[in-house]
Amino acid sequence: MTDDARRPLSRRELLRTAAGGAAALSLARAGAARDEAQAPPAGPGGTMMGVAFERRDKVRLGLVGCGGRGTSLLHDLLGIDGVEVKAVCDIVPEKVARAQASVAKAGQKPPEGYAKGDHDFENLCKRGDLDLVYVATPWNWHVPMAVAAMENGVHAAVEVPSAVTLEECWRLVDVSERTRRHCMILENCCYGWNELLVLNLVRAGMLGELTHAECAYIHDLRQVELFKTDGEGLWRRFEHVSRNGNLYPTHGLGPVARYLDVHRGDRFTRLVSMSSPSLGLQAYRDRALAADDPRRKETYACGDVNTSLIQTAKGRTVLLQHDVVSPRPYSRINMISGTLGTFADYPPRIFFDEASKLATPRKKGEDEDWKPVEQSPKKRKSGGIEDRYEDALWRKLAKVAEKGGHGGMDYVMSWRLVECMREGLPPDLNVYDAAAWSAPSALSELSVSRGSAPVDFPDFTRGRWAEKRA
Amino acid sequence: MTDDARRPLSRRELLRTAAGGAAALSLARAGAARDEAQAPPAGPGGTMMGVAFERRDKVRLGLVGCGGRGTSLLHDLLGIDGVEVKAVCDIVPEKVARAQASVAKAGQKPPEGYAKGDHDFENLCKRGDLDLVYVATPWNWHVPMAVAAMENGVHAAVEVPSAVTLEECWRLVDVSERTRRHCMILENCCYGWNELLVLNLVRAGMLGELTHAECAYIHDLRQVELFKTDGEGLWRRFEHVSRNGNLYPTHGLGPVARYLDVHRGDRFTRLVSMSSPSLGLQAYRDRALAADDPRRKETYACGDVNTSLIQTAKGRTVLLQHDVVSPRPYSRINMISGTLGTFADYPPRIFFDEASKLATPRKKGEDEDWKPVEQSPKKRKSGGIEDRYEDALWRKLAKVAEKGGHGGMDYVMSWRLVECMREGLPPDLNVYDAAAWSAPSALSELSVSRGSAPVDFPDFTRGRWAEKRA
Repeated sequence: MTDDARRPLSRRELLRTAAGGAAALSLARAGAARDEAQAPPAGPGGTMMGVAFERRDKVRLGLVGCGGRGTSLLHDLLGIDGVEVKAVCDIVPEKVARAQASVAKAGQKPPEGYAKGDHDFENLCKRGDLDLVYVATPWNWHVPMAVAAMENGVHAAVEVPSAVTLEECWRLVDVSERTRRHCMILENCCYGWNELLVLNLVRAGMLGELTHAECAYIHDLRQVELFKTDGEGLWRRFEHVSRNGNLYPTHGLGPVARYLDVHRGDRFTRLVSMSSPSLGLQAYRDRALAADDPRRKETYACGDVNTSLIQTAKGRTVLLQHDVVSPRPYSRINMISGTLGTFADYPPRIFFDEASKLATPRKKGEDEDWKPVEQSPKKRKSGGIEDRYEDALWRKLAKVAEKGGHGGMDYVMSWRLVECMREGLPPDLNVYDAAAWSAPSALSELSVSRGSAPVDFPDFTRGRWAEKRA
Repeated sequence: MTDDARRPLSRRELLRTAAGGAAALSLARAGAARDEAQAPPAGPGGTMMGVAFERRDKVRLGLVGCGGRGTSLLHDLLGIDGVEVKAVCDIVPEKVARAQASVAKAGQKPPEGYAKGDHDFENLCKRGDLDLVYVATPWNWHVPMAVAAMENGVHAAVEVPSAVTLEECWRLVDVSERTRRHCMILENCCYGWNELLVLNLVRAGMLGELTHAECAYIHDLRQVELFKTDGEGLWRRFEHVSRNGNLYPTHGLGPVARYLDVHRGDRFTRLVSMSSPSLGLQAYRDRALAADDPRRKETYACGDVNTSLIQTAKGRTVLLQHDVVSPRPYSRINMISGTLGTFADYPPRIFFDEASKLATPRKKGEDEDWKPVEQSPKKRKSGGIEDRYEDALWRKLAKVAEKGGHGGMDYVMSWRLVECMREGLPPDLNVYDAAAWSAPSALSELSVSRGSAPVDFPDFTRGRWAEKRA
């Protein structure tokens, strides 16, 4: 087994069998400073910030969750060199069989299947021959599955949101630090063409000093995801029954957190949140479903539009929204503003201050307007910012990636994760990102329930956020 | 004197000369129920909600403030039937002379000029022959001037923001109710072509039940308004030195408040606010001004981007932003969302739910996108929502209006105000609107200073907000 643990497996086994959680925790904390070479101690086990994977030729992978999302991720993974899919798991045997067939069709040895009930993923995690488990299941299973992987010495890559409650966020951090396994968040939007272009512009200082960002998940999910009778329709609508806040923060927040160097020099410190009335699902349901449909008796706690404001340690502000029930076109907003320029998405467009070296000359008195940002090489102007700041991953992968999910960002994400594991690099997105990007879900619920009172944003890095990293 | 006071002038005189403010207030409150026929008692003097102007043929007008804004307003007013400009006032004699010449050039008797120092506006207000005073001066003078007009039996129409502090907001309400004079807010953006179209759509129920609105004043004022050496450059930058919040809320909030039937069935109840760091003015100033320019020693308290969230009594949410220093194109956002559709501006566009009778037929699986909203009769599709919901004011006035300020909205605003006064209608925008739309200025400062804690939004209507009005 290729293993980059900082302490032997038997130690992790010991911790898990130690009498009582408190004793185990105390033991882990005591042992932290001794065991960590690369990373100074922080929590129980020492930080995972900047911790590199051990180099490996192959990434032996297990997939938990073979539904719509898992199938799409699997398709991408099968097109990446060095990935061996060893095991697949789902509670539906037919989905496992379908995934096994896909792997075989791609020319790999058919993976072992796990379909014996809710907890068969634990057996997958215990195999002993996996380097990485992908988790693509309903939200409430993300943390138990990631924890099972890490406790068995396997890195976890978890769909979004990686955790639902604050306790779950901390559990990911605690377990990752104790087991020395990474828990990556599969935040595909961080790998979008626009997002990586903007990240490069920001890191090159082209927007000046940053002040404010805006992001969202605005996606009308009523007809398909929330009210269909299979797949996500089996569970996702119930989140709206019991919770009122931003249920799905990471697609917007992940890219913006990267622009702002969150956990590389800044961190989120405070959040306030406000929800609109809950009207959209009821209105849709009442006109779309048969009079005797049992779903007509449901009530939905979640306000149609949730808006949160997050402040960072450097005082920057982030506007974060969630709306999956209003009739309006898709948007993640994806806006970032600084003293030298502003980028905003939907459609992608940019504006540079006249003091910027990227500003185009203006006529005196001319109304200044956005300049479009154009991904398509056919449509973009040669030598423009698109050519100069396009990310190296997209330059290399565009042709293959664009056959994959979500316009290619999914493929780029998985390709990059596999690259980090094979090259022995730290992951781009670590457990602290997973926790901090998922936390607004719980924090927004808390703020909304307290009449929009500000709530403190936990420092999941235990003080390591201010360190610059590559 | 044409006077629509609900009690004789001597009564107001009595109140003002009564010994002690408390005695006057108590007298006013006691007398409220007796004196008011049209409007039930509310505050001292009874509500001004829904109170009609007395019909008059002419509107005899005084203008206080003949700078850039006053000159533009005057130009519009001189093109409106029934307006007689009787008096003009400014602290700069040349500006008064210029305004007098403009009036004469328009064929009216030259108005009397008031240019004898900071308080000569009081003499203008005391003339006894005015129906209406327009106030277009620096923000801190708005309330003293509006109060002087009302105390002298003259209606006031005040530029934005109408008041800066909460005390000033209440003062406008108290004085308006006591003197039975209206205090209108000159919120021109309420009369924009888009804004009135959307208001008509909303009132016809075409966006369904409303849930959420967004609005802003995003306007890069660095070079012209804030750092020029005359006009607004003489005072406006100093607001940024001492205050941190949304300094200029009404252009965004006014139209949105109208969509939401604020003070016609709903009201603002709570506000939270967060400011980004203050970087933009410093950065601009440091690169644009000479090394020995004394302005380089200024420091600016106001965060570059201020974002506030406002909740209404019906639970709806309003996002309200302010940014006059970041390099980005102009926007008031002007977005409103409901269960049947969403409108957003910059550029103007709309989306209707497929259940809406205004929805265009869609192909199955087609990505749904915004439809542009087109003001220009030449560019718009005949029989579309632009034709069906265009406001009657614009149908009537477009040709003349478009020669006036801000694309025509200024002319439409003043024309409509004069129409209300001549026809004996209640004003569209009353003192409660003036107070509630200006209040986020002070409320955002308060919330920001308290770490984004929620602050209660005063009910300036004293409980009359829930009444439906035409």
